[in-house]
Amino acid sequence: MKGPAAATSVVPYVYRDGVLSLLDQRLLPHEETILECGTALETAEAIRRLAVRGAPLIGVAAAYGMCVEARRVLSRVPADLDAALEIAADRLASARPTAVNLAWAVARMRAVGLATAGGDPAGRVLELEAEADRIAAEDRAACAEIGRLGAAWLRSRMAAGVPAVLTHCNAGALATAGIGTALGIVRALAAGGPLAILADETRPFLQGARLTAWELAKDGLPVTLLPDVAAASLIARGRVQAVIVGADRIAANGDVANKVGTYGLALAAHAHGVPFVVAAPTTTLDLATPQGAAIPIEERDGAEVVDLPLPGGRTASLAPAGVRALYPAFDVTPAALVDAIVTERGISERPHEAGLARFSGVR
Amino acid sequence: MKGPAAATSVVPYVYRDGVLSLLDQRLLPHEETILECGTALETAEAIRRLAVRGAPLIGVAAAYGMCVEARRVLSRVPADLDAALEIAADRLASARPTAVNLAWAVARMRAVGLATAGGDPAGRVLELEAEADRIAAEDRAACAEIGRLGAAWLRSRMAAGVPAVLTHCNAGALATAGIGTALGIVRALAAGGPLAILADETRPFLQGARLTAWELAKDGLPVTLLPDVAAASLIARGRVQAVIVGADRIAANGDVANKVGTYGLALAAHAHGVPFVVAAPTTTLDLATPQGAAIPIEERDGAEVVDLPLPGGRTASLAPAGVRALYPAFDVTPAALVDAIVTERGISERPHEAGLARFSGVR
Repeated sequence: MKGPAAATSVVPYVYRDGVLSLLDQRLLPHEETILECGTALETAEAIRRLAVRGAPLIGVAAAYGMCVEARRVLSRVPADLDAALEIAADRLASARPTAVNLAWAVARMRAVGLATAGGDPAGRVLELEAEADRIAAEDRAACAEIGRLGAAWLRSRMAAGVPAVLTHCNAGALATAGIGTALGIVRALAAGGPLAILADETRPFLQGARLTAWELAKDGLPVTLLPDVAAASLIARGRVQAVIVGADRIAANGDVANKVGTYGLALAAHAHGVPFVVAAPTTTLDLATPQGAAIPIEERDGAEVVDLPLPGGRTASLAPAGVRALYPAFDVTPAALVDAIVTERGISERPHEAGLARFSGVR
Repeated sequence: MKGPAAATSVVPYVYRDGVLSLLDQRLLPHEETILECGTALETAEAIRRLAVRGAPLIGVAAAYGMCVEARRVLSRVPADLDAALEIAADRLASARPTAVNLAWAVARMRAVGLATAGGDPAGRVLELEAEADRIAAEDRAACAEIGRLGAAWLRSRMAAGVPAVLTHCNAGALATAGIGTALGIVRALAAGGPLAILADETRPFLQGARLTAWELAKDGLPVTLLPDVAAASLIARGRVQAVIVGADRIAANGDVANKVGTYGLALAAHAHGVPFVVAAPTTTLDLATPQGAAIPIEERDGAEVVDLPLPGGRTASLAPAGVRALYPAFDVTPAALVDAIVTERGISERPHEAGLARFSGVR
């Protein structure tokens, strides 16, 4: 199908001259504030504190975090470059545990550092910057291809009329260097015809209400929010024709770690025969991890559940003082519930073990 | 098993001398404010706006709302009593659509009004007050019996040690005239031995975070909150030994309408063989409704999803300005997913149609 290309006007980061400028996603949608990272540590903290999030984008941010540190050392003590890169790599890779893209991007940057060891420091920094640019460009291209492939796969499986697709969290332009993964497919579907877009609000960080709603509105795509708890009953009532989510890590057998709440959505979609689609670049595949049970699941501070940040740095407490809360940030959806894993190299259907192995070539 | 009786120190309402004083549940847990209702209309508005909620308790509140109106008319134009009762009954019964207890309690009060027609107005008002007191006392007794029966049923099905039970919304002392339905069972279990209590925060009204956490803490029972989205993965990881919820209406076949999110919980419990228990007095049974699809599901204003009330009457907007939201307040859990329906007259196991019919005698 030909039509207007899927695109976005959202710019979640800019790297220039040793500074990584991030759109602070903690303050959206009410404030569009730029957070400037001038060191690897500041970049790692921005990742840890969710100023920048989304599996592909934290990979890109970490790559530029290495560049930021390299430029900083170059202007001060160029001889320290190798030591600085090692420390930066450790700090960035350990900022968050679940998304495999983060470790993968840092490993690529570290490899450039090792391959250029002994060379002219200024030239080495340029090579690091070129590698980070490649990581970003590859992610941008992957999003476009995921969108194209996923939209085609879904169009052939959804009834005519105005289908409604449901997404969870934010796997969009605010989570990638491009049009997004899940939202890449949504943008590609919307470019091809009428589409109703439903978004879970995605407690506790409210990525759906704050980020997905903001970025789709910015691109002129209307979205309807729902409390996470309402998704299963909307699916049961036939009001959802497909569920499309991103991923933070996909094991070799096709088990998918993604934002907490994904598993419940998959159960509901499966119970009602609604296609459940995972969209992710191949950088999210972790074929060294055999199954989902081995994926580390980040446990965040329960205070992030109970204390809601408000504009101006205040917080609203949603519960009585002193109440404990759990906050597993991700969950694992078994491969058996996943109808399609859409990557830039193709689409895996069950059994995913064979499908994903096909995408495991050299990157 | 003998042990300390399950009890509560929570007092959600007081009726005295024609005034119904409600603990305003919109302001909990941070403010304990009493809302005084001096007319049926004020009582209906308190129900509609969720100052008082919970299926059994809105039945009790509506019954006293009839008394409030009767006392008011008695002091002004006693001859208008019958007309006033009819108007009050209509307003109260239509305040919210899903919980059948509301219509049931209003019907009982209307019947007293009709049965005493032509009598001395002051005496009639006393009879109305006696009927409301009976409705409340019966609910209080039903909660105690539900707690006793449900705890015994669960004890025989949960492993030794410290089992963890998960509840959704608030089906507690703040939802009934007694110790609660789901929380009646929780209180009875806790009175008999160590118990871990998990509570969904229950977006968007946050009944779990605001009300369940508050009332359990008030009674010295520790609770751990979780975002609704985390329940399925905790169940999958074996960290929940039973799910216990209340109900707003139960159809003849055992389909259960309850707070939105219940259906998703039931899917997850079923997928992992965790007992899924519904606790409700027989006043919640609607045997005239054959199945769940016929139960009216209240659709509330999407603004209640997007705008979070803060202390002091302010609100925090959780999404970009102008974004639409859906808010189905309830969902329907198919009878096939419900392992036990615990009433004060006994426990129904599948097939529920036969089990529930046994409880359908004269009330």
